[in-house]
Amino acid sequence: MKEVMAIIRMNMVNPTKTALANAGYPAFFCRKCLGRGKKGVNMRVAQSILESDAPMESTFGEHLSEYHRLIAKRMFTLIVDDEQVEDVVKIIIETNQTGNPGDGRIFILPITETYNVRTGQALVKAN
Amino acid sequence: MKEVMAIIRMNMVNPTKTALANAGYPAFFCRKCLGRGKKGVNMRVAQSILESDAPMESTFGEHLSEYHRLIAKRMFTLIVDDEQVEDVVKIIIETNQTGNPGDGRIFILPITETYNVRTGQALVKAN
Amino acid sequence: MKEVMAIIRMNMVNPTKTALANAGYPAFFCRKCLGRGKKGVNMRVAQSILESDAPMESTFGEHLSEYHRLIAKRMFTLIVDDEQVEDVVKIIIETNQTGNPGDGRIFILPITETYNVRTGQALVKAN
Repeated sequence: MKEVMAIIRMNMVNPTKTALANAGYPAFFCRKCLGRGKKGVNMRVAQSILESDAPMESTFGEHLSEYHRLIAKRMFTLIVDDEQVEDVVKIIIETNQTGNPGDGRIFILPITETYNVRTGQALVKAN
Repeated sequence: MKEVMAIIRMNMVNPTKTALANAGYPAFFCRKCLGRGKKGVNMRVAQSILESDAPMESTFGEHLSEYHRLIAKRMFTLIVDDEQVEDVVKIIIETNQTGNPGDGRIFILPITETYNVRTGQALVKAN
Repeated sequence: MKEVMAIIRMNMVNPTKTALANAGYPAFFCRKCLGRGKKGVNMRVAQSILESDAPMESTFGEHLSEYHRLIAKRMFTLIVDDEQVEDVVKIIIETNQTGNPGDGRIFILPITETYNVRTGQALVKAN
């Protein structure tokens, strides 16, 4: 199994979860995070100001420094079978691609074992 | 070493950390997250309403959509030695198993290197 | 590629991001988390009280239990090339090392594939 971790825009969580659920991937979790990519800061500062009504703005102090300002993002995580990775990546890219900097990144991490807490069963078990 | 990542119910963080500490695993960290599994939405909508006093409800807007509502969960992470994974998984399952959907999932990820910031030493170092 | 995940003090996010950006690593994300290490609880309770103005204190209830109190931390994540890991770890240790318990831990996880959402291109692709 693989962990598909996508850093996407805050306002793209709903379209992304709808697209994934419609394609048969209803299980996932998401979290708040702050981040920045490798592009210029100006674009990101402007974006940060646009997003300044976000509740994270008042709770997080780190990104208030003028230098290397951080952007509120959502980290979206699915755990899928190896052969589903390509399909899930395609759906996330199609849903989130605007062509502008800040569309996000997708990272694939290996998962060696998975357990269902309710049944106590290993869904995938390393040899 | 391995990362043991468990998605559990919000109200199970205290029992879980007590059970793990009593068994000799005092070091861990946890985070808020929103998620949903593969089971029906009705159960989860009901659960979401029950949990609607949770502080995440007011900060997170994503899960307010009627379709594919997300549940506030806790992501609980331990970094343990390879031979401790089986024991830790057993403790988490025993503590969190109610038999109802939503008990959670456990994922095991490989860790290739670990460093202690205070001493600057590598605790585990890849060859 | 590798994920470098560092658990650091809340007040070290700005120095760490500045040090990394100055060294040519501007892209990262960070998140709130609660955690504790293996050291004695007393030190950590004192630290928790010192940090009690942090906004997480009011939102998170778990760490209010007297037993095994959790500390608000920041989880700082970078995705870097394999050959950059050593340099990034060195910068994080030099910036965060005070010599006191609670300086943090760094974990290195393997990343098998990476995609840029804006371009749709795989930056790193598993064979």
